[in-house]
Amino acid sequence: MGAQHSAVPELVDESPDLWDEGFGDAARRLLTAGVRCFATNGFHATKTRDITSAAGLSSAALYVHFASKEHVLFEIVRAAHKSVLAVVSEPPATGDPAAHLKSLVARFVAWHARYHVAGRVGQYELSGLTPDHYATIIALRQQTTAVFHEAIRRGTRERAFGPVDDHRVVRAILSLCVDLVRWYRLDGPDSPEEVGHFYAELALGMVTAAGTVTPSGDGV
Amino acid sequence: MGAQHSAVPELVDESPDLWDEGFGDAARRLLTAGVRCFATNGFHATKTRDITSAAGLSSAALYVHFASKEHVLFEIVRAAHKSVLAVVSEPPATGDPAAHLKSLVARFVAWHARYHVAGRVGQYELSGLTPDHYATIIALRQQTTAVFHEAIRRGTRERAFGPVDDHRVVRAILSLCVDLVRWYRLDGPDSPEEVGHFYAELALGMVTAAGTVTPSGDGV
Repeated sequence: MGAQHSAVPELVDESPDLWDEGFGDAARRLLTAGVRCFATNGFHATKTRDITSAAGLSSAALYVHFASKEHVLFEIVRAAHKSVLAVVSEPPATGDPAAHLKSLVARFVAWHARYHVAGRVGQYELSGLTPDHYATIIALRQQTTAVFHEAIRRGTRERAFGPVDDHRVVRAILSLCVDLVRWYRLDGPDSPEEVGHFYAELALGMVTAAGTVTPSGDGV
Repeated sequence: MGAQHSAVPELVDESPDLWDEGFGDAARRLLTAGVRCFATNGFHATKTRDITSAAGLSSAALYVHFASKEHVLFEIVRAAHKSVLAVVSEPPATGDPAAHLKSLVARFVAWHARYHVAGRVGQYELSGLTPDHYATIIALRQQTTAVFHEAIRRGTRERAFGPVDDHRVVRAILSLCVDLVRWYRLDGPDSPEEVGHFYAELALGMVTAAGTVTPSGDGV
């Protein structure tokens, strides 16, 4: 099953580089097998022996390294969200609000392209987490979202962008960027950086075009 | 379980209006229960008795109306895709390319807001379909995508839009619009029409801003 996984384009990405350095070889293989199983069949339909089998380990091996299947999911989703936050938190190369937003979107998109398998699990399988683990992930997501909010508010304040509704525009930009985990493949025509630069221009278009203010009727 | 489902905001939408008129009451209840089960746990983790139980029917009832659990999924996904195609195929009220694109995006987004549960299943559970059923759905999706391609090409041809890469821009606009099935709730602040109008302006911004041409390095 491990060999099968690595031959399927929708399961091939750089997610195995995300796992915390504290994990040994067997635990890392379990995380890599886990992210591919969850991306293929969903968390709920994945059995622990699907993961151990894909990792080439005995069926009891999972519990040597993780307390449960849910802990495998949590470690995957946490590693992904920590990595995204680190990428969007890098200081931008320039002080201009438009370039700042473009750099942010380009990095965020390139991350989701490069790690699209962990990205899919991190977006679609959150319902498998315990409430405590879910709360930990939401806190990481809020920090990432806050970086986008600040970039938009700054552009509006410095009049580089139109008078946009920052909450709704951030949500839309995140949708544009995140959805590519659903369809992006590393063997397609665009590299992560190419799709990142393209989407950066699209996001800038969203905030510089007219009409992106609060929709009529909002707040009623 | 039916009562539980209808109390969960992420499972409350107008999907029950999508089912083909040829289905009787019990079949419609099974489709409604099915779309909510698949949206909650995924197709693979849903058992036929989860569906019949949520529909308030005996566990054998599913096979009276559908050949298999996969046929329930197929009917849901086909109904959703046919409905989307009908909505984007309505003639726009105006002949102007910008207004045409905005109308198209507004209708497409409002559909995904109003039917977000069927929308989630239609986007995330396609791997549960048989190859034949999958091919049927892909053909419907291609017709919908073609409507967007024509709207973009027309705007470019008539110089209402910038010299955009229509393939990539259509994919991006579809991402922006489709991703809302992941988070949209009908009890939130924006109605389907409000979010539709807002996204229509964002999509127009994407095609009228500079820089949305083919990324450098493409085709190499």
